Amino acid sequence: MTVSNEVSVLDRLLTNGILASACPTRVVLDHVTSKWGVLLLVALSERSLRWGELRRVVEGISEKMLAQTLRTLEADGLVHREVTATVPPRVDYSLTPLGTELVARLLPLMEWVADHADAIVGDRT
Amino acid sequence: MTVSNEVSVLDRLLTNGILASACPTRVVLDHVTSKWGVLLLVALSERSLRWGELRRVVEGISEKMLAQTLRTLEADGLVHREVTATVPPRVDYSLTPLGTELVARLLPLMEWVADHADAIVGDRT
Repeated sequence: MTVSNEVSVLDRLLTNGILASACPTRVVLDHVTSKWGVLLLVALSERSLRWGELRRVVEGISEKMLAQTLRTLEADGLVHREVTATVPPRVDYSLTPLGTELVARLLPLMEWVADHADAIVGDRT
Repeated sequence: MTVSNEVSVLDRLLTNGILASACPTRVVLDHVTSKWGVLLLVALSERSLRWGELRRVVEGISEKMLAQTLRTLEADGLVHREVTATVPPRVDYSLTPLGTELVARLLPLMEWVADHADAIVGDRT
């Protein structure tokens, strides 16, 4: 699809159906911005991590949600799961090139939220 | 808080507790990346919209979720609600300066997702 530079970002998103229901964009957006999806992607932003490391870094995630969210991100092609045949088997999770591209766009948002969260929640007196 | 440039983004986010449970960052992140929160913020990225316009643009949102999400975003100081005393009263929603800052960081992510959603969902055969 060719999009002119004259077209605004919002028009472009509307054209691509990001605000319409039942479109792939909504599905991916739900995965990426799910409570745990976003935290797992950021946790993997610098290096691969093992299951137990992910559980520790992403505080509060249950075994069930960790398994489920990793499966979704793996099916989306954003996270790579590598099993090394040791005893016991070692499983490492890392970002795929696609996941790395995505996280590059997630981090500025996360940083902004981290910088402004206290002020935002503090506004609610 | 002063953060050295030497500190990685991930370290910085960990220091700010973005991956820890029960911190303001997680609360704000949940609001901002909620299914409807992100779509409403993007919908308002260019101009103020009225209630009915928001319902049409953000396809599939219920009256209840629209009201609830707008209340949360307003309480966070991200969305401004302006009532004009006409008969019937006119209510416009717009981004606050804080909301505008946030959306500037949301749009690159949304564009990337819109550009890659078909490929990502198509991967799942």
